[in-house]
Order: sequence, then structure tokens, then C-alpha cells
Amino acid sequence: MPNASATTGLQLRSEVKPEGIVELSLVSVAVPEPKPEEVIVRVDASPINPSDQGLLFAGADMSTAKASGTADHPVVKATIPPAAVKAAAGRLGQSLPVGNEAAGVVVQAGASPAAQALLGKTVAILGGAMYAQYRCIKAVQCLVLPPGTTPAEGASCFVNPLTALGMVATMRSEGHKALVHTAAASNLGQMLNKICMKDSVGLVNIVRKPEHADLLRKIGAAYVCNSSAPSFMDELTEALVATGATIAFDAIGGGTLAGKILAAMEAAANRNAKEYSRYGSTTHKQVYIYGGLDRGPTEIHRTFGMAWGVGGWLLTPFLQKIGFEAAQKLRERVAAEVKTTFASTYTKEVSLAGALQLAEIAVYSKQATGEKYLINPNKGSK
Amino acid sequence: MPNASATTGLQLRSEVKPEGIVELSLVSVAVPEPKPEEVIVRVDASPINPSDQGLLFAGADMSTAKASGTADHPVVKATIPPAAVKAAAGRLGQSLPVGNEAAGVVVQAGASPAAQALLGKTVAILGGAMYAQYRCIKAVQCLVLPPGTTPAEGASCFVNPLTALGMVATMRSEGHKALVHTAAASNLGQMLNKICMKDSVGLVNIVRKPEHADLLRKIGAAYVCNSSAPSFMDELTEALVATGATIAFDAIGGGTLAGKILAAMEAAANRNAKEYSRYGSTTHKQVYIYGGLDRGPTEIHRTFGMAWGVGGWLLTPFLQKIGFEAAQKLRERVAAEVKTTFASTYTKEVSLAGALQLAEIAVYSKQATGEKYLINPNKGSK
Repeated sequence: MPNASATTGLQLRSEVKPEGIVELSLVSVAVPEPKPEEVIVRVDASPINPSDQGLLFAGADMSTAKASGTADHPVVKATIPPAAVKAAAGRLGQSLPVGNEAAGVVVQAGASPAAQALLGKTVAILGGAMYAQYRCIKAVQCLVLPPGTTPAEGASCFVNPLTALGMVATMRSEGHKALVHTAAASNLGQMLNKICMKDSVGLVNIVRKPEHADLLRKIGAAYVCNSSAPSFMDELTEALVATGATIAFDAIGGGTLAGKILAAMEAAANRNAKEYSRYGSTTHKQVYIYGGLDRGPTEIHRTFGMAWGVGGWLLTPFLQKIGFEAAQKLRERVAAEVKTTFASTYTKEVSLAGALQLAEIAVYSKQATGEKYLINPNKGSK
Repeated sequence: MPNASATTGLQLRSEVKPEGIVELSLVSVAVPEPKPEEVIVRVDASPINPSDQGLLFAGADMSTAKASGTADHPVVKATIPPAAVKAAAGRLGQSLPVGNEAAGVVVQAGASPAAQALLGKTVAILGGAMYAQYRCIKAVQCLVLPPGTTPAEGASCFVNPLTALGMVATMRSEGHKALVHTAAASNLGQMLNKICMKDSVGLVNIVRKPEHADLLRKIGAAYVCNSSAPSFMDELTEALVATGATIAFDAIGGGTLAGKILAAMEAAANRNAKEYSRYGSTTHKQVYIYGGLDRGPTEIHRTFGMAWGVGGWLLTPFLQKIGFEAAQKLRERVAAEVKTTFASTYTKEVSLAGALQLAEIAVYSKQATGEKYLINPNKGSK
């Protein structure tokens, strides 16, 4: 196995400096000797998810980014707007590793049978510090990928797949029968469509561009509404009537969309109302905000009665709530369907140094649908 | 008993007309013969709560109100702004009775023992159509007031007392240990302070004027924050640290206050945080909006992590959720403490015709703290 005896590896770091800037750099870190229950994974593929960019950029305005350092050890500095400085206060001066999830090959293993059994296997891993050439992790945290799966195919086994599965599970556990999803043409959104088609769950997709609507219809989505169209509210209401969706998962967060979804849900609920109620329908309408593509304030025009909720939704507390066994079932489903339901696509594969090129940052920091990057920390080094 | 044989009585009505106006008037309605399980209550006192004004005014701009009719049968018409017309569409052309709660004397009773037992008793009643001289209602719905209680003292036995008790019960059932209340110097807010002092529950009061802070401190409130003060966020955060309050009940609804409360709760939760979490604290922070003193949009600046919720809260679904028996216990507590914990004060007592005088509407429609009206539908007629 190449690099089986590597003693150091590069790791990407993000640090907020007292002067209100974020500094991104690569550092050399020692590869530890794995404890009996641990393995060393050579990271071959790790996606840049929107959920990684919060930690990576610390809310900085990346249009202010300036490059320094060398080609192998680039350094990027960018200014954090005053409003975001306060939110970043808790991490001031800490050089933090980044990267939620990855896939790679187990190149070293601790003495335990569980660890030894993983030697040479391609595994998917979750847990932070994945933008690194090597990652030491407990054997029990490794999801073994089916034979013939490449690290690139298995790199996004957790964040998007478990989030999509978690949305459907939350919908069920809170008593709803169909759901709404925004920014619906994303990798996550496409997975959610495949899950819902496979599991016969009603799904209303909200997108912002006609080409994204086309993309979703091509993969079989039945309900796609374009929020930029003048007929949006009518089309959304009809889709809600047809599906009975009363819960939404919103990746955007800022602006009026969450409130509009609630208003359309109320209109759908009142479609067959028998008598006027001054407090609106008694149907509980819920929007969970799980992302912040628009970091601006959420503006809720309360025209939909009193039976409503808007709140944050996050994968980790959801997994904690359902417990290890239920979560493990979800993970195993992901591994089994990694090349179908949970297949991801990427625009570009870059090295760690490549991820710190200003030209690349300018592209992936937009978090635009269809512009997803994959980091291969060992690109060119094998 | 006076009027025991009355065959008709005046009733206040509100109707939305197709031309986008609301019309308020008094109509003569027949007093029905009570069925065996029913009684006729002569309504002597019924408060004008904020929750009544939604139905009464239908969202109309009352500064446009015009009077017509006679002194005994006044008619008031006011224009409904375009934004509110849609919300009122469900009640178009329906002449609706108004008034959630009242107190009065049982002047006629059906044949059943339960009904007969109420004859001559002073009772508090809930159920709509209370702005009327007589109200036919089931005996089981009557809350008998302790001897020596006047109808005026018992008029507000339900909406405010049960809402205040419901807030404390919701706080407990959702796992919080203290609560925040806005518009806290209201009748409801004063009750909530008395309940919390009696039951040793931490309460953070938010008011908008220094004189309201003084009022609450005089009745013993420990934590009062003035949202108009420049030091508001700091004072609120300190009060949240001291009480551990992680749930708020907000009567205002519009504007940035709900989001500010969540931000202060997050700051309080992070006060003792050991390490930086990019997703904020794991403490769930909740704001329930139960009123709409500001009908404008709710503007939420999401600077407080992902463990948060904002939603509607309403008394009736709360009572349905806890069930009849638990609700009955709350009602009995109200009756027992109606002159102490649950005492209400009113600015003025008016007749039904008086409630439709433009000068009076101009005062009570402001829903200002300390400007609460009581309707006595039989004022002057006894």
C-alpha cells in the first residue's frame, strides 16, 4: 500500500485572527500511531459541502480574499464583516481543521480485530478534519463501501444522504404525510427526489431557475415550482393540495420564502374548510431551516393563522435523537445504494492546495447548484 | 329575577362587506328556550380583549371608521386595507357575533338538575357571542364564581387566566425551567407575574416603557427589561443567565423582538460554553407568538445557531391537548383566585351601544397597556 508508513500529512486549517480576518493555510501534522480500536484512512475524496463552508470561511466576505504563501503552501486571508465577527468570537485564535466527511483507503490499523479487518478497505468516514491527507478514526466509525466503489463515489455518504433520509424520517415522526424542499435541484435535493420516488412519499420541489426545474423533471420529479415565476404561489398551493405536504425543509433561510410556504400551506388547508375560523386552519404547518444560502433575516408575514412553526434543523441532533441503531440502518442503506439513490456529482476535483486557489474559491464559495467541488488531499502525491 | 322572561336581546355583530369594509351593528335576536342541559345567562360584563378585536374589526383600519345609525342602534363602517381583505375572505357576508368570554347571572334554566342548580348563580362563561344581553349556553360550560364575586370581577376568567396558566404549563411540558413574556405589563402579564411568584417560576418581563417597568416592579417582578433602552440586549441576557429561561411568549409578533430574544438566549447559553461549536449551542430556544400587537412581518436575524423555533401559540389547541380534566383544574384555580391572582382592571365600562361609539373605539382599539374596556350589555337596562 503506498504511503502506508507516512509519518506526516498535510491538513487544511482555518483560523480567525483578532484583526477580524480568517486565514486559510496548509500545515504538516504528524500521522499518529493508531490505538487498538483505530485506523488510519488515506483520504482520497472529501466534498466541499455548504455545511463545511461555515467553518472554513467563518462568515468572511470571500470577495476580499488575498493570496500569499507558495504554490504548495498557499495562504488565503479574507475580511470578516463586522456582523459576523461576533459570531466567530468563540473560535478566535484557534487553528481549526475542516471537512465533515470523506472516503479513502485504510492504510494502517490498530491491533484490535475490528481495526485489522478494515486494512485495505475503502471506507466512508464522518467527523471533521477530513481536508487532510490522513485521518485517524475509530474503526466503528468507518462505513465499509461495497466492493468496486471508488473513494470519489463514496465521499458524500453522510451529510447529504443522512440529511435527506432525516428529512423523510422527521416528516413521518412529526405526523406529516408529504414534504416540501427548497433549493431542490442540489445534490441533496436530487437524492431526496430519488428517496421519495422509491419510498412513495409526496415531494414538492422549489427551485429558483427554469433549468433546475427541467433537471428535476428529467429525473422524475412530479411537483416542481419555480419561486421566480409570477404564478409561483398558485402553483405551490396546487402542489400542496395534491400532495398534502405540511412540512418543508428550507436550505435558503433568509428572505420571504419560508413565510410564503406557510401561507401556501394555509391556503391549501383552507381549500376545503367548512367554516370561517378567525385563527386560521388547525393544521400545523412547519418549516425547518437547515441551511443559510441567504444569510439575511428570515421575514415572516404572519397571514396563515396560529398553527405554524419555523425552526432550525440539523443532522447531528436528529441522529442523536433516533439513536445509534436507527442511525446505523440509515447508514447501511446509504452504503447499499451509494451508486444509485445516493450518487453525487462534482464539477471538479482539486488538491488541498487547489482548494485554496482564489479562482477555485470564487467558484465553489457561491454554493451554486451544479458547482460542487471534491477535494482529493492525495491528488498527485500517489 | 329581572328580565327572566325577556324574549329578545341585543347582540353586537361584525360583517365584512364585498366592497372591502367591515360593518359593526347591534341586532335584536330572540332569546331561545333553553334545552334541558342549557341555561340562559344575562351577560353583565364582557371584556374587550385583543383576541376579540381580530374578529370585531376584521383587520380594518379603524382610523377610517364612520358612524351612522341611531344612538341606540349605532352602525360603524371602516375600510379594510387590501392586505387584510384576503385574510377576511372566509367570513365575507356573514353577520358574526363577537365576544369570547363574559360573566353574568343565570336567569333561566333547562329542566336538567345540573341546569336548575345554576339558577340565580353568578357564572363565568366562554364560547363566543358574548357581546349580547343574553347568552344560551350548556350548564357544564358555566364556571360558578365564589359567593360575593361580581360579574365585573369574573368577566375575564378564561382568556387571560388560562393563557397565563397555559404558558407556564407549556414551559414545563416542553422541558424549560423559566420563561420570558413580552408586553409584560398587560393584564395578562400582571397575572403571569402573580402566578410565577406564587409557583416559584422564573419570569423575565419585557416592556416598552419605563412606567410599565415600574408598574411590574411594584407588584414584585424580579426581572424587567425595557426593549426601548440602549442596554436592552445586555440586561435581557443577564436576566436569562439568572433565570435560565429558554422559552418566550410574545404578544407583539411583528418586528425584530422575537429574534432578539433568541439571540440573547443563545448568548446566555454560550456564557459557560467550553468549546466553539460552529452550529451554536445545543440548547433549544423557543419563542411562541400568541398575539399580534404589531401586525407587520416577523424579522428573524438567525445569529443563534440551529437549535431554535418560532411558532404560533393559541389557547384552544393547548386546552384540547391537555384534555378536559386538566383544563377543568386550571379553571377551578381561576375561580378560587379570581379576586387575587387573576384580578383584572378596566379603564371603563360601556354599554353595547357605547362600545360602538367612535370615541371609545379610538381608545380601546389601540390595545394600549392599561386601556382595557369592559362591556356591560345590560348597562342601564336593569
